[in-house]
Amino acid sequence: MSDTIFSKIIRGEIPCHKVYEDAHVLAFLDVNPLSPGHTLVIPKEPAVTVDALSDDASAAIGRVLPRISRAVLGATGASAFNILQNNGALAHQAVFHVHFHIIPKYDDGTGLGIGWKPQSFDHAAGKELAGKIAATLAK
Amino acid sequence: MSDTIFSKIIRGEIPCHKVYEDAHVLAFLDVNPLSPGHTLVIPKEPAVTVDALSDDASAAIGRVLPRISRAVLGATGASAFNILQNNGALAHQAVFHVHFHIIPKYDDGTGLGIGWKPQSFDHAAGKELAGKIAATLAK
Repeated sequence: MSDTIFSKIIRGEIPCHKVYEDAHVLAFLDVNPLSPGHTLVIPKEPAVTVDALSDDASAAIGRVLPRISRAVLGATGASAFNILQNNGALAHQAVFHVHFHIIPKYDDGTGLGIGWKPQSFDHAAGKELAGKIAATLAK
Repeated sequence: MSDTIFSKIIRGEIPCHKVYEDAHVLAFLDVNPLSPGHTLVIPKEPAVTVDALSDDASAAIGRVLPRISRAVLGATGASAFNILQNNGALAHQAVFHVHFHIIPKYDDGTGLGIGWKPQSFDHAAGKELAGKIAATLAK
């Protein structure tokens, strides 16, 4: 993968407003925030997308999401928030190093905008697709 | 917390199109999908929001996100996807048991709609807020 602004931040070549760091994870404020307290949580392991991330690096991020979320809520006074993680330019990824957004949602509507258009679901097709996904996972 | 449709699915009282299960995590197809392959990954531990989830349960989810994502991509042929996790009705949460959405995004636009309106960022205020969040995390 190419070098990104996040790998430069990890190496300390670019400053950030750091909120948390451990051996596997770095978290800092997004400087293009959707709302106050918008925080990025990234693995130190280089990977463009979550499907390319190691189990251990992804577990390390999962482990700190509750703690960092509580701290963001405590510091901002927000009570609702979204965690968003985009994979691929088509899915709105803009920096090609895995990152999880923690985005407080406020009463005035600031925060993540969500477009939600459910499709119809066919149970026979769903059963077949679930079986296909499960079979891959069981390998 | 109240009983939810997800706790009933975990207990096997309501069927689901299961794709993965381990001691801590259950994953199944969303029956109101935003796109084919839309999958929910939930902790067996009961918690309404991620900030109320234990570190271990959240790490267990983090650990399987890469594997489940790869399996969803492999089965659907999608190459882009979003992971979304909503906390609070204001942030679009509809079932009050923690769940991570894995939502494939397709060339025709089906998948998660994202509204992205960045705000201005003041570095002095950002430094102060980051310090406040970091101080909570260091406790």
